[in-house]
Amino acid sequence: MYRSHTNGELRIEHVNQEVSLSGWVQKSRDLGGMTFVDLRDRYGITQLAFNEEINSSLSDSARKLGREFVIQIKGTVKERSSKNKNIATGEIEIEVTELIVLNESKTPPFTIEDKTDGGDELRMKYRYLDLRRNPVKENLMLRHKIGLATRNYMNNLDFLEIETPFLIKSTPEGARDFVVPSRMNEGQFYALPQSPQTFKQLLMVSGYDRYFQIVKCFRDEDLRADRQPEFTQIDCEMAFVEQEDILQTFEGLIQYLFSEVLKVTLPDVKRMTYVDAMKNYGSDKPDIRFDMKFKYLTELVKGKDFKIFDEAEEIIAINVEGGNKLTRKEIDKITDYVKTPQVGAKGLIYCRVNEDGTLKSSVDKFYNQDELAKWVSTCDSKPGDLIFLLSGDTIKAQSQMNDLRLHMGTMMELRDGKTFAPLWVLDFPLLEWDEDSNRFHAMHHPFTSPKKEDFDLLESDPGKVRANAYDLVINGVEIGGGSIRIHDRDIQSRMFDLLGFTKEEAEAQFGFLMSAFEYGAPPHGGIAFGFDRICSIFGGSESIRDYIAFPKNNSGRDVMIDAPANVDDAQLDELGLKLDISLEK
Amino acid sequence: MYRSHTNGELRIEHVNQEVSLSGWVQKSRDLGGMTFVDLRDRYGITQLAFNEEINSSLSDSARKLGREFVIQIKGTVKERSSKNKNIATGEIEIEVTELIVLNESKTPPFTIEDKTDGGDELRMKYRYLDLRRNPVKENLMLRHKIGLATRNYMNNLDFLEIETPFLIKSTPEGARDFVVPSRMNEGQFYALPQSPQTFKQLLMVSGYDRYFQIVKCFRDEDLRADRQPEFTQIDCEMAFVEQEDILQTFEGLIQYLFSEVLKVTLPDVKRMTYVDAMKNYGSDKPDIRFDMKFKYLTELVKGKDFKIFDEAEEIIAINVEGGNKLTRKEIDKITDYVKTPQVGAKGLIYCRVNEDGTLKSSVDKFYNQDELAKWVSTCDSKPGDLIFLLSGDTIKAQSQMNDLRLHMGTMMELRDGKTFAPLWVLDFPLLEWDEDSNRFHAMHHPFTSPKKEDFDLLESDPGKVRANAYDLVINGVEIGGGSIRIHDRDIQSRMFDLLGFTKEEAEAQFGFLMSAFEYGAPPHGGIAFGFDRICSIFGGSESIRDYIAFPKNNSGRDVMIDAPANVDDAQLDELGLKLDISLEK
Repeated sequence: MYRSHTNGELRIEHVNQEVSLSGWVQKSRDLGGMTFVDLRDRYGITQLAFNEEINSSLSDSARKLGREFVIQIKGTVKERSSKNKNIATGEIEIEVTELIVLNESKTPPFTIEDKTDGGDELRMKYRYLDLRRNPVKENLMLRHKIGLATRNYMNNLDFLEIETPFLIKSTPEGARDFVVPSRMNEGQFYALPQSPQTFKQLLMVSGYDRYFQIVKCFRDEDLRADRQPEFTQIDCEMAFVEQEDILQTFEGLIQYLFSEVLKVTLPDVKRMTYVDAMKNYGSDKPDIRFDMKFKYLTELVKGKDFKIFDEAEEIIAINVEGGNKLTRKEIDKITDYVKTPQVGAKGLIYCRVNEDGTLKSSVDKFYNQDELAKWVSTCDSKPGDLIFLLSGDTIKAQSQMNDLRLHMGTMMELRDGKTFAPLWVLDFPLLEWDEDSNRFHAMHHPFTSPKKEDFDLLESDPGKVRANAYDLVINGVEIGGGSIRIHDRDIQSRMFDLLGFTKEEAEAQFGFLMSAFEYGAPPHGGIAFGFDRICSIFGGSESIRDYIAFPKNNSGRDVMIDAPANVDDAQLDELGLKLDISLEK
Repeated sequence: MYRSHTNGELRIEHVNQEVSLSGWVQKSRDLGGMTFVDLRDRYGITQLAFNEEINSSLSDSARKLGREFVIQIKGTVKERSSKNKNIATGEIEIEVTELIVLNESKTPPFTIEDKTDGGDELRMKYRYLDLRRNPVKENLMLRHKIGLATRNYMNNLDFLEIETPFLIKSTPEGARDFVVPSRMNEGQFYALPQSPQTFKQLLMVSGYDRYFQIVKCFRDEDLRADRQPEFTQIDCEMAFVEQEDILQTFEGLIQYLFSEVLKVTLPDVKRMTYVDAMKNYGSDKPDIRFDMKFKYLTELVKGKDFKIFDEAEEIIAINVEGGNKLTRKEIDKITDYVKTPQVGAKGLIYCRVNEDGTLKSSVDKFYNQDELAKWVSTCDSKPGDLIFLLSGDTIKAQSQMNDLRLHMGTMMELRDGKTFAPLWVLDFPLLEWDEDSNRFHAMHHPFTSPKKEDFDLLESDPGKVRANAYDLVINGVEIGGGSIRIHDRDIQSRMFDLLGFTKEEAEAQFGFLMSAFEYGAPPHGGIAFGFDRICSIFGGSESIRDYIAFPKNNSGRDVMIDAPANVDDAQLDELGLKLDISLEK
């Protein structure tokens, strides 16, 4: 062992002990007679002292140490004359008697500090240096803790972690699969799993009534800032349960993780139907840390010769508490925001509720004080508030108002990173109509069961059928979602019909599952959590990438190892493949 | 919830409680007035009783239940009149008051019993039914326990579990990679990792001085009975350590697992050099549950006109204690065994040590009693023993004698499934010469460090260089292996030279690692355990397949889901690929 202690370990009670330490040179200060070196490892920083008068050649060597050199030292723990209260080892330093350079270092391309001078690309290329920085290290340690706590919670509830295969079969439903050519079965391909869905359901058929797995999943999607081609799920399934059992078990998990890892007592998980979430927040994952619910003013504002409102399907308002303090300039900026392409509104109407009770709107030409007063009462606005209105097609207006509401939440400091507001969104629609393919898609996935009371609608009005599906949302972020599954061959088969599968397609792709349902499949359901996402919520960050040791960039590349890359022709030949790249694409 | 209790839970103290249970019908017995049903779930079996006299329609329904039907019942716990001591719930039964069939079942294609009538192929096709059987269930539960215990042990030692990427870069060194075509980077490929080797080394460079991961790995090899294209490793790495630190940390892990999971106190882990292992056992993974070391009789037996011995490079003997009780017929069978193609010996010579001290060999024509007496003393044989001799080229003879030794160990019942004999094999050669490619290959992998004292041999006699490499062997099975790594760019570069890489190839494939070594890489080393293999050793089985929920067959196929499979032309087109299958291959 190259050390007797770590660099986070030594305290005043170790004074006069002989120790050996190893680590990286964080920085060194040459004060003439004394040279001080901060030695860093995963556990902390310890100050090394080299005294010119005691050992001048050792002092010379110390002066030559560069940033990020790896060294090993021996020495004696001494009490510091000037203590540093900011670090755990700040009361002591090491009077060094022996110094060995284990490895030198070139000057890193960016500083290894909490606030680094390195840009994104550079840090990704030298990810192994970026990983040395404290904030990144803390993210990975947080991830480790959440993983371990999850496993212990699940184990205590008799859940078994069972590994499901990675080399499975491609299915056209849902997102695009990554495929893996098979050499032993030339011309055929495995697919990497988008989730262990069918396998966990088979495990239920097999009687493993409480399954979970923390597992990598893969989706070949065009990447947005917050997506990765490989990501990690906490994947769970239970048999002999109803929706309520799942909700209770897994709000228990989340509460346990918050208390165990963050020492935070999570409030009770609220519940809301999908329909209410869309109506009140314009989103199926509302951030309920703040209220600011949608008010529908459509009836109220039409017929006053204001063409924009008269032509709109819906006019939606939100009340911004204390918003009247916003300046004209600030409101203009907000208007600019809603007009950006990612929000897509045509304009923004507002009405100030002045402290003296007078009302001032941007559409005073069309609405008098009495009429505006009705807005105020519908919106429950008080003096000092500000009302915003957006109009248009219902779905678009709801979506735009959702963006504006979140924007105002941030602006009014209602979205505190230390407050957590968990929410179950329930009763999702079973199907959604896809204009492109002119058919229904499964909103959750094809294995989700319809609600019994909506069964009749499957024939008459499939779009109206509600599913036994639920999402867990925290602070406006969906961290998990699941459903009670179909466990009956006939219903599963009918579901595939609805989704436009021929009998043959359904059999070819999911025959094994439907066959399993004929041999005693129990009622079952489950949920999958985005593990990267949970880590980012716990860490208070927007980006999952910060919680992944070696993430890919937006083109799906690992710029550090430079992958993907070309492969030998011989390798392709063995797989029975030829490149066929069209320049037009 | 479809149940108040599981089927393994109810005891005499629950008598008179109203309960609800769910599960599968294991079997039912119609005794006229009474019908008994064994209800099974993961936790056990509970007997249900239906009394014709109390409720005849319920009894009728019970009679119609088929094997593997999924049912839910309500009823009252009663003390049984005739108790069953073989099951935990054997003192009670349920007097059923309500019966719901949750799902029917076709008759399974094989019996769901400990000893099933289903063949391998059938059980794999209906793996979800095979998984219902007790022995398979116990294997998966064992696997779960070992995984959890590993994680807790590692966490207690400050190891962090850090996930490394699955979509990486193909490297020609070692086994064949599975590759994954990239749609976003057309014409380029990811590779699935054969191990997280380079990533865990980068984590050491990053300062995460104690890393582990239980992780899937992939190798596209022609499969032997005991290999799977995807398998699981317990992958570990430490910085600032020497070989001794690794050995102690991980024999600690194994001892902990044995004590925690099997309640077995593992004996101290013995140590042996590679050279001694080859010399004494003809194997780098000797089963040391029994002795039967090799004796080299070459000098002793040559020059007596026995041509086979005279022409052999080496003549090796083992002494089988008590082997003289074997009949002529049994010895003939053993001779047949060593002549099978997988062993490959030409013949087998023996010498009986009779109880009266006389010696009887199969080559009495060439060797008199005095000469045979020298064999006996060299082999430390006692009356009642039997000596076997094999001859030929040293390496072949050692390998054949290894097979024979293990065979005799089994035959003499020296390989008890409840005895565990762990062993570190140390000082492996760094390189091995490959006749096919006419160059050196890395025996462990190209990142393994040569022993300092053998450094000079790197130029003069590379084949003689020993590595800081070690394997952990239990009962003749390698369960883990690792090494102290190179952490110096120049030595790593020299290693790639030795392995026949051009500078350009080394840079293209491992430039990121060599570059990382220039920014302060600490000394480090690690080990990887075969998780599937550890499970099989713990479970007392020869085959890892029994410990994998959904294994592949020897052609790399999952016969249940029927993968790999064809993919759409459109999918290939998106990937810039075309099939190019030659019929000659």
